[in-house]
Amino acid sequence: MSVWFRQEIQAMPWQVDLSSGLPELYPVSGFRLGTTSAGIKTPGRPDLVVMEMAAGSNTAAVFTQNAFCAAPVIVAREHLVRQQPGYLLVNTGNANAGTGDAGMRDARECCAALARHAGCSAQEVLPFSTGVIGEPLPAGKIQSSLPAAMQRLDEHGWSDAATGILTTDTVAKGASKRIVLDGETITITGIAKGSGMIRPDMATMLAFIATDATLERDVLQDCLLAATEKSFNRITVDGDTSTNDACVLVATGKSAAPAIAKNDVNYELYCSAVTDVCTQLAQAIIRDGEGATRFVTIAVESGRSRDECLDVAYTIAHSPLVKTALFAGDPNWGRILAAVGRAGVTALELKNVQIYLDDVCIVRDGGRAPDYTEAAGQQVMNRKDITIRVVLNRGESSEEIWTCDLSYDYVKINAEYRT
Amino acid sequence: MSVWFRQEIQAMPWQVDLSSGLPELYPVSGFRLGTTSAGIKTPGRPDLVVMEMAAGSNTAAVFTQNAFCAAPVIVAREHLVRQQPGYLLVNTGNANAGTGDAGMRDARECCAALARHAGCSAQEVLPFSTGVIGEPLPAGKIQSSLPAAMQRLDEHGWSDAATGILTTDTVAKGASKRIVLDGETITITGIAKGSGMIRPDMATMLAFIATDATLERDVLQDCLLAATEKSFNRITVDGDTSTNDACVLVATGKSAAPAIAKNDVNYELYCSAVTDVCTQLAQAIIRDGEGATRFVTIAVESGRSRDECLDVAYTIAHSPLVKTALFAGDPNWGRILAAVGRAGVTALELKNVQIYLDDVCIVRDGGRAPDYTEAAGQQVMNRKDITIRVVLNRGESSEEIWTCDLSYDYVKINAEYRT
Repeated sequence: MSVWFRQEIQAMPWQVDLSSGLPELYPVSGFRLGTTSAGIKTPGRPDLVVMEMAAGSNTAAVFTQNAFCAAPVIVAREHLVRQQPGYLLVNTGNANAGTGDAGMRDARECCAALARHAGCSAQEVLPFSTGVIGEPLPAGKIQSSLPAAMQRLDEHGWSDAATGILTTDTVAKGASKRIVLDGETITITGIAKGSGMIRPDMATMLAFIATDATLERDVLQDCLLAATEKSFNRITVDGDTSTNDACVLVATGKSAAPAIAKNDVNYELYCSAVTDVCTQLAQAIIRDGEGATRFVTIAVESGRSRDECLDVAYTIAHSPLVKTALFAGDPNWGRILAAVGRAGVTALELKNVQIYLDDVCIVRDGGRAPDYTEAAGQQVMNRKDITIRVVLNRGESSEEIWTCDLSYDYVKINAEYRT
Repeated sequence: MSVWFRQEIQAMPWQVDLSSGLPELYPVSGFRLGTTSAGIKTPGRPDLVVMEMAAGSNTAAVFTQNAFCAAPVIVAREHLVRQQPGYLLVNTGNANAGTGDAGMRDARECCAALARHAGCSAQEVLPFSTGVIGEPLPAGKIQSSLPAAMQRLDEHGWSDAATGILTTDTVAKGASKRIVLDGETITITGIAKGSGMIRPDMATMLAFIATDATLERDVLQDCLLAATEKSFNRITVDGDTSTNDACVLVATGKSAAPAIAKNDVNYELYCSAVTDVCTQLAQAIIRDGEGATRFVTIAVESGRSRDECLDVAYTIAHSPLVKTALFAGDPNWGRILAAVGRAGVTALELKNVQIYLDDVCIVRDGGRAPDYTEAAGQQVMNRKDITIRVVLNRGESSEEIWTCDLSYDYVKINAEYRT
């Protein structure tokens, strides 16, 4: 199963289930993807993806803020500052994290092997890994499967690649958008994986986005930072920031549209389209959160600062009590109230706070809203998409994040992950 | 079922299962407890406790730091600053939290009703509530049951009271200790409740401790603060700080031992004994954590500060991925590593960090310890009591906290709590 978002010019986002025979994600001129099985964890399962960008492309990337980042993250950062990359090398089934010097060696060797096949330098390859932490990377399997992956490089390789990067995900995730700038069409297409250990911090799990627009590297990096800040940095499944998070945006410059500069009027339009693609991918990760049965938007309004809004939102989103109540479809608003109260907001007055489930006001004037009824709350909780809205009434800041519930299946998936 | 800790002078702590006919908690001269059923949630279940202290007692208390503290917490704080209390009034089944002005009125009326029966002022009564948040307190039921509770006031009423304050707890929790100061025996006895929404912040769920020692009120308060800091403030089940946490220490002064002053040589001895009782109660709460199948000590050593040690410890303790791995008995140390890495410790170097499961070193020199074997890790994880020890190797601070795993039953208990 897949969740595909594809957005035509000016159209609303829509989801495409690939199995229903609906159209593919839009290809991006100058960006090819090749997927194969290296037998890393399960024989025959696609687990190795090579991505190739045309000469003259620019690449932006953000990585995990976890202090113990994985070997491929360290190597990718090193390579990125030295040279414009030509290839991305992604494996699933093994995170190559907590693997010490041997892990660094393995990551470098895989890059060198790909470079030999491609006729470039090892520094032009960025490595990415996801899967079990702490096991040695099967570098030999990866290296011997590189020719097969490269043979399949194709601009239409997005959906195979989307499948080839998954771990515990149950659906492949992709998003495409086309916009017109100065009469010329620009395409933005991305794929992502992620289901558990999801609380991206300045990055996401793995997301790869390509565009045929033309942007200088620093402009592209600014655009990616702005987009991830409002998309991948606004989701959480379990509050656990991964050691391997990475999000890459490649601009091939193959579109006929003019280059987009930072002060250009087109920059805001373009950046907003990239943010849309990132948001669709980020939300697809939450919808596929481990064991998730509900998609929950948490909106915190009229706080004094961005940070205080996010503190309240994430305290609610990480509360196991709120999450289990959401799983049960129980409008147990006392737990939401308690979470807001312990979020560490200074001088917060309960009497000024309003809390809503969708359009139903549950807390007002220091306690349960006088007109609240359990039936009205229950009606909202029966929905699969729910918004918890907290109005702090003390400032001008508002923030929105997305999360899911905590179910038996979350425990099952994570209790049985390595067995 | 009950978990009783009783410690004789100089003896090691031991647990007493009341149902096995072993001795009661030590009574405290000048402190009586009476328990009855007011039918608040379940008819016939003990849910109302009155505690009475002799004239001349001193009382210390700490309360939740949740900004939205419950009505009884607000009223108890008010009363405590005005007058030395004579009575504690505790109900379970309803937290009287998020109940606005009506909740405040209900709490005050219950205090006034008890005061009328006891012939004292309403301000001499401290109210405590625990249970469902956001439902109106059934103040009428409580008031009409007060005579029955008061009729049962008895120095031997500890075990009934320990049962009468429970909510989702599966065992009653008590601890007793006797020490000798200057040839005279002093008794410290306490009871506690708590199982979910457990992440006390400067307080606990509900804990009531009495002693026949003689201490000035400010000395008693200092002693309680020091004791809770190392006991109730070092436990977490789910990271959710309750709106109703409270811990009370009453000193009746009925012992023949001399008064204990702050600079007294006996103060440290006495304070350490109170800390022991608090720690036993706090650990009993964790052992009875909702759905808990394992008791987990997290020790963080040689950090630069207390705060950084606690940040690392609580990040591990609150990680759903670590907690589900503990439930599964899976030595998935990569999840512990990832949690340490995202704890927000500045300039933390993985290569200096060591992580142990009990005595088995799992992480050293930047990755999995060379001599680590899955079999050795598995052997530890098969135990019911496990210590995760993280050595930061960058300072002189060490801290220890206690937590439990995250099981199917945690989800079940909290998904079905209100149904």
